[in-house]
Amino acid sequence: MLDFTRYQQGPWATLYLADLGADVLKIEDPGIGDYGRRMFREPDGFSPFFEALDRGKRSVCIDLRHPAGRDLVLQMVDRADVLAENFRPGTMDSFGLGWDVLHARNPRLVYGQATGWGTQGPMAEQPAFDQIVQAYSGFAQQAGGGPGHRPEIPFPGVADQTGGMNFALGIMTALYVREHTGRGQRVEVSLLGTQLALQAPTLQYTLRHGIERPRPFRSSPTVGHYECSDGRWVMIAGIDQKFWPRIAKAVEREDLVHDPRFARGGGRTANRDALEAEMATAFRTRPSAYWLARLKEHDVPASPVRGHEDLLTDEQVAANGYIQSVDHPKWGTLKVVGPHINLSETPAHVAGPATPGHGEHTREVLRELGLDDDRIRALEAAGTVGTSPPG
Amino acid sequence: MLDFTRYQQGPWATLYLADLGADVLKIEDPGIGDYGRRMFREPDGFSPFFEALDRGKRSVCIDLRHPAGRDLVLQMVDRADVLAENFRPGTMDSFGLGWDVLHARNPRLVYGQATGWGTQGPMAEQPAFDQIVQAYSGFAQQAGGGPGHRPEIPFPGVADQTGGMNFALGIMTALYVREHTGRGQRVEVSLLGTQLALQAPTLQYTLRHGIERPRPFRSSPTVGHYECSDGRWVMIAGIDQKFWPRIAKAVEREDLVHDPRFARGGGRTANRDALEAEMATAFRTRPSAYWLARLKEHDVPASPVRGHEDLLTDEQVAANGYIQSVDHPKWGTLKVVGPHINLSETPAHVAGPATPGHGEHTREVLRELGLDDDRIRALEAAGTVGTSPPG
Repeated sequence: MLDFTRYQQGPWATLYLADLGADVLKIEDPGIGDYGRRMFREPDGFSPFFEALDRGKRSVCIDLRHPAGRDLVLQMVDRADVLAENFRPGTMDSFGLGWDVLHARNPRLVYGQATGWGTQGPMAEQPAFDQIVQAYSGFAQQAGGGPGHRPEIPFPGVADQTGGMNFALGIMTALYVREHTGRGQRVEVSLLGTQLALQAPTLQYTLRHGIERPRPFRSSPTVGHYECSDGRWVMIAGIDQKFWPRIAKAVEREDLVHDPRFARGGGRTANRDALEAEMATAFRTRPSAYWLARLKEHDVPASPVRGHEDLLTDEQVAANGYIQSVDHPKWGTLKVVGPHINLSETPAHVAGPATPGHGEHTREVLRELGLDDDRIRALEAAGTVGTSPPG
Repeated sequence: MLDFTRYQQGPWATLYLADLGADVLKIEDPGIGDYGRRMFREPDGFSPFFEALDRGKRSVCIDLRHPAGRDLVLQMVDRADVLAENFRPGTMDSFGLGWDVLHARNPRLVYGQATGWGTQGPMAEQPAFDQIVQAYSGFAQQAGGGPGHRPEIPFPGVADQTGGMNFALGIMTALYVREHTGRGQRVEVSLLGTQLALQAPTLQYTLRHGIERPRPFRSSPTVGHYECSDGRWVMIAGIDQKFWPRIAKAVEREDLVHDPRFARGGGRTANRDALEAEMATAFRTRPSAYWLARLKEHDVPASPVRGHEDLLTDEQVAANGYIQSVDHPKWGTLKVVGPHINLSETPAHVAGPATPGHGEHTREVLRELGLDDDRIRALEAAGTVGTSPPG
């Protein structure tokens, strides 16, 4: 597949396809290439951002503004199943590489377009970034606690990563449909649309009632996290009635089980503050390990609130292959987040490390396209393609 | 497709398939059915949770513990393309409906399994809920600010919704592969694996260095939100050098552009606190509308931090169909989050409102399966299938 995407939303989507076995040709311009190469760059040049998003792809440098560059892309389109891009709407048309042109040339091509705002509406041409759309979509305000609270961006990248998941889903859907219709189509997802999808069950309240519900620190006294005597936090999730007696027993407050204020869900909601205070006091009397053991014994879903370091040595993560090692020509053995969609017959694999060199595979790919070395040297001399610019 | 999923992760995935045209048969037990019907239930019985996750599906009540119920499911499997379930691992086997049995019966069946923890490892059999996995995966700690900060669940449902996106992606991938191999396979995704995927670019730092980086309130002085004189917040995202002079001009501090402390990205990082203070002071002098106009004029990506109500009347959201109306037999005209993956030739549609009646389509579906009315009445009398239990 031909991958013109940059930054995060697009590259995350095409990473899935690389892991699933696609030959992803990352087409970069001969300038600095994907700016993602520089995001969070460390003193030795390592970018965790680029590594996480662009492993297992081949890098090809082509100047799309150059007519010979455009011709190369058209030749590549003839052989491609999928093209993905996340330029502002209209950019590919300005290169002479818009959907109409490419669809006429290769009717089986699936054309994937990831946008910020969708292709319609007054903001369609506006730039969009993760945080901007977290703010616009109401996610930042709700994440801060709802109206009247300081808004938060709890996790930069949530909009981009989820946008990438949906983009991959859209592309796979179009590929599946193509098997039945014989024709490719254009598939478009946006950061904005995906943010609404991410929030759909919560938004449904506002969609009916017209007002936003504040988000409490805990979903309810029995779903949320409490601080223990060792300063660590324990998360519990007792979402229905059957968990209530178990929770009360686990926190050594069996007396609360039949307390008329708390015995039923309605009472626990109405007397929420009182119950939270009882629970918080209980958790503060003992260390987290003590409570976790008791919660497990009473079959209450619970977890310590953990840090990212804890994942490195976690048996559960390792057993399912969610973190894997790759050998990287520059950075040595490197742990990466591995594929996490588990297919029994055609499993995904970490296709390789991130391309260290911008344009590293240009010559290789042009040779596969049938160009001879004289022609490649001429394109290099003209600046149409790049081969080994500074990394 | 046969949909045995409950709560959120599974139903969100099968909603995509319903919107894309699949006939989703939601198989519920004859007791209370999917507990999601009761989540966030309002006094009149409306559940925004269920409405958001289960619209456009048909509800069929079958007791899977009853041999005749199992036989009905096996007949349905013969005609199905996809089966989805999110029980704890092993539950479908305990009904005699495990992968081995179903695959032998219908080798083309795609068997989708959504789990909490993956199918391997010491926690595979443990219960999992959204908040539990947000805590376990490090998301809650990072969302609170990283180590040493109070952890947060910034948005309940993030783990489930993203798990559902990946689940739909896995199912579509297996369907696509089936077109080439002729055979179905088992596809499994988990909340835990998806939480790692959601955090992949951030986690990559810990995967290399072994420690977690704290998350500042703003990603940088030029990427984050500032409070204005009217108490509203404005988000800006100036992620590379070209935006710096634009931002300084937009906030009427052109003098900062060449300030040696701030002129380059490295300086803005080293002198982050000083720059944030300058920016915060500037934003506080004028109302948000003033700054938004100036930011737009200077081509700086920006947005007001908005609430969920703002989406109801938003032109951009409406223009792209992200919020749509459905006619609901019980709740009247209802706004819902619509499909947000835009396919040019085979567009998705809101398939309909959420099934008001648990088991409402049982008779209809059994008739489609070829059962006559006598047989259906006998199954009803035996309690194997349910038809119109209390909603």
